[in-house]
Amino acid sequence: MSLFEKHQPTITKAIDALHARTFYAAFVEHPAPAVYGETADADGQVKFKHMLGKKFEELLQANPEGWAGQEESPYLQEELKVSYPIFSTNTLIDRAQKSFHQWRKVSAQDRAGILMESLERVKARFFEVAYATMHTTGQGYMMAFQASGPHAADRALEAIAAGYEELNRFPSSAIWEKPMGKFNLQLNKEWRAVPKGISVVIGCSTFPTWNSVTGIYGSLITGNSVIVKPHPGAILPIAIFVAEIQKVLQENNLDPNTCQLAADTFDRMITKELAEHASVKLIDFTGNSAFGSYLEALPDKAVFTEKTGVNSVILDSVEDVDKVAANLAFSVNLYSGQMCTAPQNFYIPASGIKTPTGSVSFDEFAEKFVANINGLIDNPKAGPFVLGAVQNKNTSTRVIDAEKIDGKVWLKSRTFENPQFKNARVATPVVIEVDGSKKDIFSKELFGPIALLIKTKNTDESIALAQSLAQQHGAISCGAYTTDSTVREKIADEMSMAATPVSFNLVGGIYMNQNAAFSDFHVTGGNPSGNASFTNPEYVTKRFTWVGHREPVK
Amino acid sequence: MSLFEKHQPTITKAIDALHARTFYAAFVEHPAPAVYGETADADGQVKFKHMLGKKFEELLQANPEGWAGQEESPYLQEELKVSYPIFSTNTLIDRAQKSFHQWRKVSAQDRAGILMESLERVKARFFEVAYATMHTTGQGYMMAFQASGPHAADRALEAIAAGYEELNRFPSSAIWEKPMGKFNLQLNKEWRAVPKGISVVIGCSTFPTWNSVTGIYGSLITGNSVIVKPHPGAILPIAIFVAEIQKVLQENNLDPNTCQLAADTFDRMITKELAEHASVKLIDFTGNSAFGSYLEALPDKAVFTEKTGVNSVILDSVEDVDKVAANLAFSVNLYSGQMCTAPQNFYIPASGIKTPTGSVSFDEFAEKFVANINGLIDNPKAGPFVLGAVQNKNTSTRVIDAEKIDGKVWLKSRTFENPQFKNARVATPVVIEVDGSKKDIFSKELFGPIALLIKTKNTDESIALAQSLAQQHGAISCGAYTTDSTVREKIADEMSMAATPVSFNLVGGIYMNQNAAFSDFHVTGGNPSGNASFTNPEYVTKRFTWVGHREPVK
Repeated sequence: MSLFEKHQPTITKAIDALHARTFYAAFVEHPAPAVYGETADADGQVKFKHMLGKKFEELLQANPEGWAGQEESPYLQEELKVSYPIFSTNTLIDRAQKSFHQWRKVSAQDRAGILMESLERVKARFFEVAYATMHTTGQGYMMAFQASGPHAADRALEAIAAGYEELNRFPSSAIWEKPMGKFNLQLNKEWRAVPKGISVVIGCSTFPTWNSVTGIYGSLITGNSVIVKPHPGAILPIAIFVAEIQKVLQENNLDPNTCQLAADTFDRMITKELAEHASVKLIDFTGNSAFGSYLEALPDKAVFTEKTGVNSVILDSVEDVDKVAANLAFSVNLYSGQMCTAPQNFYIPASGIKTPTGSVSFDEFAEKFVANINGLIDNPKAGPFVLGAVQNKNTSTRVIDAEKIDGKVWLKSRTFENPQFKNARVATPVVIEVDGSKKDIFSKELFGPIALLIKTKNTDESIALAQSLAQQHGAISCGAYTTDSTVREKIADEMSMAATPVSFNLVGGIYMNQNAAFSDFHVTGGNPSGNASFTNPEYVTKRFTWVGHREPVK
Repeated sequence: MSLFEKHQPTITKAIDALHARTFYAAFVEHPAPAVYGETADADGQVKFKHMLGKKFEELLQANPEGWAGQEESPYLQEELKVSYPIFSTNTLIDRAQKSFHQWRKVSAQDRAGILMESLERVKARFFEVAYATMHTTGQGYMMAFQASGPHAADRALEAIAAGYEELNRFPSSAIWEKPMGKFNLQLNKEWRAVPKGISVVIGCSTFPTWNSVTGIYGSLITGNSVIVKPHPGAILPIAIFVAEIQKVLQENNLDPNTCQLAADTFDRMITKELAEHASVKLIDFTGNSAFGSYLEALPDKAVFTEKTGVNSVILDSVEDVDKVAANLAFSVNLYSGQMCTAPQNFYIPASGIKTPTGSVSFDEFAEKFVANINGLIDNPKAGPFVLGAVQNKNTSTRVIDAEKIDGKVWLKSRTFENPQFKNARVATPVVIEVDGSKKDIFSKELFGPIALLIKTKNTDESIALAQSLAQQHGAISCGAYTTDSTVREKIADEMSMAATPVSFNLVGGIYMNQNAAFSDFHVTGGNPSGNASFTNPEYVTKRFTWVGHREPVK
């Protein structure tokens, strides 16, 4: 049985789910011993610890020109001292070019089989990936497992499935027969899905696998060779994926350099060198808007970006204000507000939020919101694990600086004790009230656990602000609470025009921060928060070109 | 019966053909009296003549701010003196913005029905369109009828079909139900295909409808409002399309400004003003590379270009050299080389072209090629109608200048008498031999009837030159003649890497210049000749954004 045949049922289910957009998950998201094995977690942790302080020697990239690595654990505030093989840009490009001409001739089926197999291999290493993610990003254990393991693998599968479908969208050949009256003109036609060339995938420090695998697998399934350039602060999780891809390539007598890791260090970043290289035709990027916009403007390249945005919550009317406050408190606490989908601006009418039992005033809601944030932080069985640690020291600084914002500080940021990691870099949310007229304060992303309660004239102003900020500065998510169907449609329509998906009336165990593979497009590509979307058809079709040849039938 | 129901069978057939890429034509390409009516041609000519010297008053755009028009017939070398309503950029944008918010809420089915109906209305005016095309572009009668009439309508239908399919690619709603162990989490999800906004379609002087209708109908089907900015030298053919679209819109109680004509004049061109306007989100362009590249670099817009390229013919080995010479002679004579798909560079090995009866030398082929060109020109029943007239005076100058190229002039350009139009601006092909080492001479587009016979070391060099020119300067078409299957695959592969479709071994009544709707992608988007392709999925998906909203099931 070929690798394609082995994995075909999963690919078929994934394509069906992509179309139906109903629930589908190929990888089990909970680290359940029954699924992964009784000792999988402990084994993974041991393997992760065994990697520390050593060379990462799993990659099949020959003759490293050096070894380096500067990752640091936000939980330990110590260096991991894992070092990775270092290669010059020329070496990386030369190898990518060479492997490209082999890989592009591999059939779509064989590519799909190999890529699926690599995901299955990574599945056996989800716990290693989880600990590597915790100790580079600062994510809590559960998020690190889910986001970097099964959720990332599902997103990768989504890209494989979307790519596989698009590669088969048109026939490889057809007879074209045109009636010409006395005879028929007949042409043999053939169509080739021609990959673009070398793809560079630039990772971020907070979601080193989830945000990169779609580009990696999307480029590979469509026949491009890939250079993975992780953030120098979060290499290990994606290095494990790359190593497994390389192993499966080699087992199938293909050049492992089809997917290379291009680790670098803070003092010698090679991102621009790679991105600007004329042979690089595809770039995927997750990170800050300035660098993303620079990449988007590079000529003659297809560039896929997820940049930053200002995510809003519009509060109009609610069924149960306590459930709403609890839900939103969780959203801002989750991974200390370091998700690109975390809410920042909470628009509340000066007259308060309507409920079945009368209005809840602005101040009453602020109190409930703060109480729920504190309640979660101070719950020792939940708080430290939900908030995790702060990846970047600059985020800690930004949270402290936020207290200087011109507005009432409802909640100051503070620290808390993580029972497992006494030395963790932590910061709880700061909550500040800002008047709706002070647009300059809230019309930018304040990355990290920073929540602004914005007092607006009314819900119409809330919607107008949320829309204009999304249009001007981008937005990846939006939360809205209303029990009025007219207001609901107005929000749905106005935020659609800002290409921002809205989560309405979420309470309980589901949060606006979450996006599910196969169903939720992640980033729409329609506002400044990014020009691409996981995984709409363009996400894969832009990675290759349809070329048709023709010849008269003999 | 709704307009959608009326036209649904055609749309369904078109979608099927798009996928199968087999022959399909919804509009009859020959101006047969049996199809169009015995008097249709004569009636169309009368109607066209009746338009001359008058205001074009069919448009439903209120309160023109002026009237102007500077079209000139290449056949008569006289002004048509048709004048069009003139509007300021602000008026055009304001009306487009207003109509957009109505049109975007019209269902995909209703949009498809209205757009199909407009094509059916234009079908009844194909002869008017044909004469308008002849007397603006200089195309011969048959090409003017086919390209601006049925072929353009088929391309428009193709865009409608592709857009309609993509708008229905994902469900408008679905229930997402995630097993959570003890219970299922249920979300109602909905997806909206959100149009981008205002679309500007910039026409060219040689194919004023064929090259513009795909953008116009592609943007309209996906819910955008469209401003059609024709070339000031070729307005009338597309004005008839726009007028019919507006009439059907108005009949259906919709704002006719959903599709506006933005005519301008050579002394007061508004193209840049329109393109740079912040509200314009989509731009379609056919024309020169410099302006196309300027448009592509405009930030925050989706830009679809067809620019210029250098089209090659690779001559390696042939079955019947006379048939090949005849076929290629037709290709360079057709519309006097003013097609974007016309061949320019003919690569011939110094050792000649292999045939079943021995090699035909470079000089022997050149002689046959020249003889065939002359034979066609001097055939009074064919020549004047195949060559047509020269649209732009600059083309005539360029042809004369071409004789100064460093190489042997095998054939000088000359004039000929068009029996119908004594005053026609005409120019026959110039044929020059250039050595393969003089790449600077042939590595640019020499628009018009200019053919370069390039003497190469061998077919490998021919392929390398054709590929590198396509990669560096773009190519829209490529012809190749070889009877060797290894050479054939090498050409197919190498030209694929330059994103250039190859027509192999064409002889008889089919030419490399021709691209058929529903089967041949026109321009691949993969080399500098243009960044878009009629009609691949991206051609329509980039005109809207998928946005998903969600809410817990109650």
